[in-house]
Amino acid sequence: MSNKRKYVYYFGGKKADGKARMKGLLGGKGANLAEMVNIGIPVPAGFTISTEVCTYYYDHKKKYPKELKAQIIASLKKVEKRMGAKFGDVKNPLLLSVRSGARASMPGMMDTILNLGLNDETVKGLIEKTNNPRFAYDSYRRFVQMYGDVVLGLKPEDKHAEDPFEVILHQKKKKYGFKLDTELTAEHLKELVEEFKAEIKNKTKHDFPTDPIDQLWGAVGAVFGSWMNERAIIYRRLNNIPAEWGTAVNVQSMVFGNMGEDSGTGVAFTRDPANGENVFYGEYLFNAQGEDVVAGIRTPHPILELKKESPALYKKLDHYRDILEKHYREMMDVEFTIQQGKLWMLQCRVGKRTGFAAVKMAVDMVKEKLITKEEAIARIEPNQLNQLLRPIFDNTEKQKAIGEGRLLAKGLNAGPGAASGKVALNAHDAEVMAAAGDKVILVRIETSPEDIKGMNASEGILTARGGMTSHAALVARQMGKVCVAGCSALKINYKDKTVGVEGSNISLNEGDYISIDGTTGEVIEGKLESKPSDVIQVLISKTLKAKQSSVYQTYNSLMKWADSIRKLNVRTNADQPDQSANALAFGAEGIGLCRTEHMFFGGDRITAVRKMIVSDSLEERKAALAELLPLQRSDFEGIFKVMNGRPVTIRTLDPPLHEFLPHSASEISELAAELNISEKKLKDKIESLHEFNPMLGFRGCRLGVAFPEITEMQARAIIEAAVNISKKGIKVSPEIMIPLVSHIEEFKLQEDIVRRVANEVMKEKGKKIKYLVGTMIELPRAAITADEIATRAEFFSFGTNDLTQTAFGLSRDDAGKFLPLYVERDILPSDPFEALDQSGVGQLVEIATKKGRSSRKDIKVGICGEHGGEPSSVEFCHRVGLDYVSCSPFRVPIARLAAARAVLNGNSVKKKGKSKGKQKKSSKRK
Amino acid sequence: MSNKRKYVYYFGGKKADGKARMKGLLGGKGANLAEMVNIGIPVPAGFTISTEVCTYYYDHKKKYPKELKAQIIASLKKVEKRMGAKFGDVKNPLLLSVRSGARASMPGMMDTILNLGLNDETVKGLIEKTNNPRFAYDSYRRFVQMYGDVVLGLKPEDKHAEDPFEVILHQKKKKYGFKLDTELTAEHLKELVEEFKAEIKNKTKHDFPTDPIDQLWGAVGAVFGSWMNERAIIYRRLNNIPAEWGTAVNVQSMVFGNMGEDSGTGVAFTRDPANGENVFYGEYLFNAQGEDVVAGIRTPHPILELKKESPALYKKLDHYRDILEKHYREMMDVEFTIQQGKLWMLQCRVGKRTGFAAVKMAVDMVKEKLITKEEAIARIEPNQLNQLLRPIFDNTEKQKAIGEGRLLAKGLNAGPGAASGKVALNAHDAEVMAAAGDKVILVRIETSPEDIKGMNASEGILTARGGMTSHAALVARQMGKVCVAGCSALKINYKDKTVGVEGSNISLNEGDYISIDGTTGEVIEGKLESKPSDVIQVLISKTLKAKQSSVYQTYNSLMKWADSIRKLNVRTNADQPDQSANALAFGAEGIGLCRTEHMFFGGDRITAVRKMIVSDSLEERKAALAELLPLQRSDFEGIFKVMNGRPVTIRTLDPPLHEFLPHSASEISELAAELNISEKKLKDKIESLHEFNPMLGFRGCRLGVAFPEITEMQARAIIEAAVNISKKGIKVSPEIMIPLVSHIEEFKLQEDIVRRVANEVMKEKGKKIKYLVGTMIELPRAAITADEIATRAEFFSFGTNDLTQTAFGLSRDDAGKFLPLYVERDILPSDPFEALDQSGVGQLVEIATKKGRSSRKDIKVGICGEHGGEPSSVEFCHRVGLDYVSCSPFRVPIARLAAARAVLNGNSVKKKGKSKGKQKKSSKRK
Repeated sequence: MSNKRKYVYYFGGKKADGKARMKGLLGGKGANLAEMVNIGIPVPAGFTISTEVCTYYYDHKKKYPKELKAQIIASLKKVEKRMGAKFGDVKNPLLLSVRSGARASMPGMMDTILNLGLNDETVKGLIEKTNNPRFAYDSYRRFVQMYGDVVLGLKPEDKHAEDPFEVILHQKKKKYGFKLDTELTAEHLKELVEEFKAEIKNKTKHDFPTDPIDQLWGAVGAVFGSWMNERAIIYRRLNNIPAEWGTAVNVQSMVFGNMGEDSGTGVAFTRDPANGENVFYGEYLFNAQGEDVVAGIRTPHPILELKKESPALYKKLDHYRDILEKHYREMMDVEFTIQQGKLWMLQCRVGKRTGFAAVKMAVDMVKEKLITKEEAIARIEPNQLNQLLRPIFDNTEKQKAIGEGRLLAKGLNAGPGAASGKVALNAHDAEVMAAAGDKVILVRIETSPEDIKGMNASEGILTARGGMTSHAALVARQMGKVCVAGCSALKINYKDKTVGVEGSNISLNEGDYISIDGTTGEVIEGKLESKPSDVIQVLISKTLKAKQSSVYQTYNSLMKWADSIRKLNVRTNADQPDQSANALAFGAEGIGLCRTEHMFFGGDRITAVRKMIVSDSLEERKAALAELLPLQRSDFEGIFKVMNGRPVTIRTLDPPLHEFLPHSASEISELAAELNISEKKLKDKIESLHEFNPMLGFRGCRLGVAFPEITEMQARAIIEAAVNISKKGIKVSPEIMIPLVSHIEEFKLQEDIVRRVANEVMKEKGKKIKYLVGTMIELPRAAITADEIATRAEFFSFGTNDLTQTAFGLSRDDAGKFLPLYVERDILPSDPFEALDQSGVGQLVEIATKKGRSSRKDIKVGICGEHGGEPSSVEFCHRVGLDYVSCSPFRVPIARLAAARAVLNGNSVKKKGKSKGKQKKSSKRK
Repeated sequence: MSNKRKYVYYFGGKKADGKARMKGLLGGKGANLAEMVNIGIPVPAGFTISTEVCTYYYDHKKKYPKELKAQIIASLKKVEKRMGAKFGDVKNPLLLSVRSGARASMPGMMDTILNLGLNDETVKGLIEKTNNPRFAYDSYRRFVQMYGDVVLGLKPEDKHAEDPFEVILHQKKKKYGFKLDTELTAEHLKELVEEFKAEIKNKTKHDFPTDPIDQLWGAVGAVFGSWMNERAIIYRRLNNIPAEWGTAVNVQSMVFGNMGEDSGTGVAFTRDPANGENVFYGEYLFNAQGEDVVAGIRTPHPILELKKESPALYKKLDHYRDILEKHYREMMDVEFTIQQGKLWMLQCRVGKRTGFAAVKMAVDMVKEKLITKEEAIARIEPNQLNQLLRPIFDNTEKQKAIGEGRLLAKGLNAGPGAASGKVALNAHDAEVMAAAGDKVILVRIETSPEDIKGMNASEGILTARGGMTSHAALVARQMGKVCVAGCSALKINYKDKTVGVEGSNISLNEGDYISIDGTTGEVIEGKLESKPSDVIQVLISKTLKAKQSSVYQTYNSLMKWADSIRKLNVRTNADQPDQSANALAFGAEGIGLCRTEHMFFGGDRITAVRKMIVSDSLEERKAALAELLPLQRSDFEGIFKVMNGRPVTIRTLDPPLHEFLPHSASEISELAAELNISEKKLKDKIESLHEFNPMLGFRGCRLGVAFPEITEMQARAIIEAAVNISKKGIKVSPEIMIPLVSHIEEFKLQEDIVRRVANEVMKEKGKKIKYLVGTMIELPRAAITADEIATRAEFFSFGTNDLTQTAFGLSRDDAGKFLPLYVERDILPSDPFEALDQSGVGQLVEIATKKGRSSRKDIKVGICGEHGGEPSSVEFCHRVGLDYVSCSPFRVPIARLAAARAVLNGNSVKKKGKSKGKQKKSSKRK
């Protein structure tokens, strides 16, 4: 035996074969079941079939390793012994649950079979054991239905088609005039079992398997099979879970929460998963199966009520909560069942949470000395910070709406934040409406895994049924969506596509506006304006004092820790003094990209810009540029003042000139009059600027090469502004950036202009300042010849948007025809315009960085594409040794956190109580 | 002295300081003057100031090295001694010429001063010496004029403005009623000298320098200065001559060909530079200055006439010709002067020649055992082969035109080939007309260096004056242009922009068609169709037997030698069986690129293609594709048959679909009717296919990924065709190429389809064939991840057109706005769409080749972009180790020759008589 590979891991009593660290092999559920056993928490005995069997299964045409059978039989024996019952025994039958359990949680994605082991004989044993024929037959009919649906494949592929067993059940109730399942007697349920079996025979041409061992193999096969169902594949893609991981199968003794009023079932979180408060949080139902709670069919009671209903049970549960939090040093999500007064823990795992809660719990646990600040940072996905920055409804406006009678209902505050959008009544409509540019609130009776894509496309999710741990609530929190769940007053009619409200005449149609407050659970008719979050109110609006907001304080602690760890600098992309000030409030350490052309659109400037473009001669062009000079200069003065000595990277004119000209006939006619030229001349000019591929056209430094006077004007505006501000005693640190360089000679020409003008200005003004001249690296040729370019350029800034477009040969504007397909079919791991394509475009970044440093050791290297605020891309930038990332102001905190996590991912995270001496203080890159 | 750097190199008598190999230091002219002295050819003594002085001059703000003065004085002493005259001596003055002499010949580009050393005193010595006051004053006035123009800068910058000295000269002649310069007497010329000097004083406020040493320094400075004049800069750019090379200055004793009827001057080639025949070829004039011959002012006599006029001189000259050819083992171009009966050689250099002549001479010299075949190949610029392939006029049509009286005149056959185009009467007009897409014949009285750009823009050049060695003839041959020179019957009126013909009423206007035959010298009114060259007639038209054409035989010898040397395979880009057959005749070894979409446009196919595009469903699309299948298959069958086992690379559908749809309203309406769909639907479809950047849009393998059925159909057509042909006993070797791959996953998807379909077809047909599946590397991301892609791709073919576009971020269609400027201003060394950008795009090619071979050692790597037929790019492909290049059929011979030269450039060329054992036979790359 010892030579053979171990595929099956027993757990039960006080000792398990596995442990928490064996998640890769046992899946999350199996590993944690083993761990609970090991730390003395009562768990129904069972065994885990390892993920290696899943891998083997798919590598060997759905065959199992030959050792498996004997190992399962051996473990089953141990389970029988521990639970004092026998699988298939007609007197004292052991019943089993068979569930999937992957390394990463995939809630509801794969199949589960309960009550396995029942047949016409063992059901009698169950009756004898429980003295409850109705319970026994109800268990039996549930098992046959589940087995028929899942293992034998009777569940219709079309999600809108009816389950054949539900049809039979419905007819049965109709026949007897019943409304509820609970009205059915044991005899009715027994009839149903026979009718279900007949349906199976009819559909599959095979008898329902009566041998419990056959049932077990069937169920195990179904769980492995469900690893490759469509839902699971989509979920893995959305969550970047590799298919090679496989799932484990957990076979566990059944315990029943529906054995009467001394039985029950529940789920709980060791802390509040919505706001992160350190209170026991959960729900339970007496006389119910666990699936009833999770599926949201009945609305359960808050866990604190259990304290009153059964203080002893509550005390035990709270004790286990304490053991688990101390042991795991994490907020845990547990499932429990009370079978005839005995409390069993069925599952525990790290609990999902809102970004809000994630930040609060991590910061609290550091303060409680449960974890280190490094662990805290490692636990927070940078994008979760969004939730602290996200707008909330303005309370006055909301109260006004409520005063007007627009409060439709109140549900559970399952996903915080405020969202307003058009009602969509199914996932497909939500996707279509979102694709058309609408903000959407997905409104469902309850959600199911089939709805994931629609949920992802929506701003918020509103459900009529289900609790804080329902599918809708779990998934919404994970996605960072606003969610109000269990809003039972809503009367949703899928057929008419309407939403009614109990006790009201109001009826909304699909497409009407609705607003939901995921922090309070309020559902309001119509559109509501939102307002800034606490953090924003402290930092940007300055309408709230830091001390008054615990959310801000939590945010602030986290950011300080992140800053103490990260090595990357974080700058911002900003074009205006006010934007720059916001970015500073978010912790930006400089401006990485100031697009001068954004300034060209404001006020009267566009007229001067247009004059410049339609000029026939150098003189005319220079005259138009002279009008722009003071305007640009004053913009730069404003920015330099705000940035107060921090580096400010200013890019010279980049977009193709036709972007500044109008295209409609009326606008052309107007502009021609304004510029005092003929319409024909203007049209000809516009025509002459037309390009087949504007992305690859006359733009970037090509403009400055053809019209050096533009670069001259801009260089003058920058240096004059810098000198003026410097004369006021404020430090300035301008970095002038030449865009779209493909060849060192282009850079040289532009650099020469900048340096000449700078010298002139400094001489005129009698004051010298320091400044740098560098370039965007946004073309593959520039990346590949970065060693040449760095002989002159003092800094590089990767324009990864254009670098992605050119490296892939992919126009962002045109990619809509095929890029979604590419992501959907896993041709590309993700949209390369969202997350940097590390293996392709990233290689160019790495090559250019190395080559650049080979010619100029201290060259400053950063990134200013939109990837600069995307966490995985920020980590990449850290790994390849950039000096800074630059992103939009609101993403600065996310980038700061991602930069810190990058450091921790490079090292191993220091854990509380396991540190080996003090970690070196890391200094930021210069 | 020995510690000091040597800047000045003396030559004269039997011994010179320099030699031919010192071209870098002494320039071509100086090195060859030295060499001639060393091999016993009489050369007027002189000295060469090295190119290092030029470099020093420009590096040190136009100052000379301090040693220079003494070295010049010392050399001058030796010259005086050798020539028996003294510089500045009033009795026996030594006169000097001062000329530039760069490493590479730059005919007429830089300044020259003759007769230097004359002043009011020394002119008397000259009179005494020659007893010819008219000659002496004519020399003097020429010197003052030249010195005034060149050294003192009186020559107007505006080339249309009149030379002030010519104005004075003109007035003088007018005053005396003279028509010709020769009518002026010594006294008149003496007056002119004074008037010229007065003009100089007037314009420069300085007296004309009388001290010969001052004159010498002025002239030396002017020559160095002319290295940076605009003409010279343009010439260097056109000919890729680096500015750093600098020019040398040759100071040489004057000898005079205009000292009377026992004096003369001439230029000659040791073989015929037009057709390459081994006959002495040249022209001379008695009683003339050398400049008179070169400038084409008088039409000189053929050298063979000298044999009659002066057998002794001819014999001497023919003897020198023999010495020179044996010594240089090359066709040499010489200038000579006879001064009062004594023959002096003034210059020798390797002679310029037509492509025609280059090939013939090289092949002949191998047969004469003068050079090795490797040397022969090294001497022929691959593009010169064009002249052997270039069309000629159809003789019947030409004779008919002549019969109709359209033969306008006959000139010298200065540049072979046939050209027809619109008359342009100045270089600027020629450029403008050519830019507008017209074929242009530049018609000038004579050409000058200012006309170079216009000549380059024209198909052919026709001049009224000047001989075979005139500026027009020399430059045209070098450029490979058709040229008829010295066609004195033409009466060209620049002002009216008309061309009249002596003795005829015909008058052509600018813009009228004219045809010139550079092989016969005929000038014909109107447009004439041309017909294929001898080589084409043998290879393609098969209207001429190989034995009957010596041109073909020469071509064939050369190609055989090239094939024995080259390692690169040469394939062709061809889409049709007849194209493929042509390419085979040119020596193609396979097809490197067969664009399947070219087949989509023929006949009814376009309708099926359009049906496919507008299909709403998979079924409709498949039905349309089914119509295309037999058509594509039969195309491929034709190609496989012709190629007879040679590899055929077929690219699956590449262009964006909108390229197949019409865009005008009438065409849309027609097509809608044809396809039986509404116009609106068709318009919507066209609209939906519109792209902002089609170059970066929905094309290449993206089509096959979105519509796998297209790839399926194409794979089926290819494999069915291959199997069908194979069944006929003909070998087939298909290579299926997936375009625009950016990521390995795209390739995998397409490869899987191809292999699946291939297996199906081979099973259906019961016959297996070998085939490869590979990819274009035409996107930077593909190049950079070539190691991944090569895990699946069996070959790479670099699509350097698109790779250039994406690496530079440069749309070929839009680059017209700035790319010409980039080339003109030397920002880019050349148009990267013509010659591969080796330092940027080339790096990507190199990286991808290395990475590809790191995953798949034997991966076949080629290039199929238009660079595959451009000689410098072919050499690059050899250097980085590609297996083959592929180019258009007519460029195949050029690529074969370039590939051979690449091998020779890698090794050192084996020279006749210096070989060390037999060279290893090189085997082609597989």
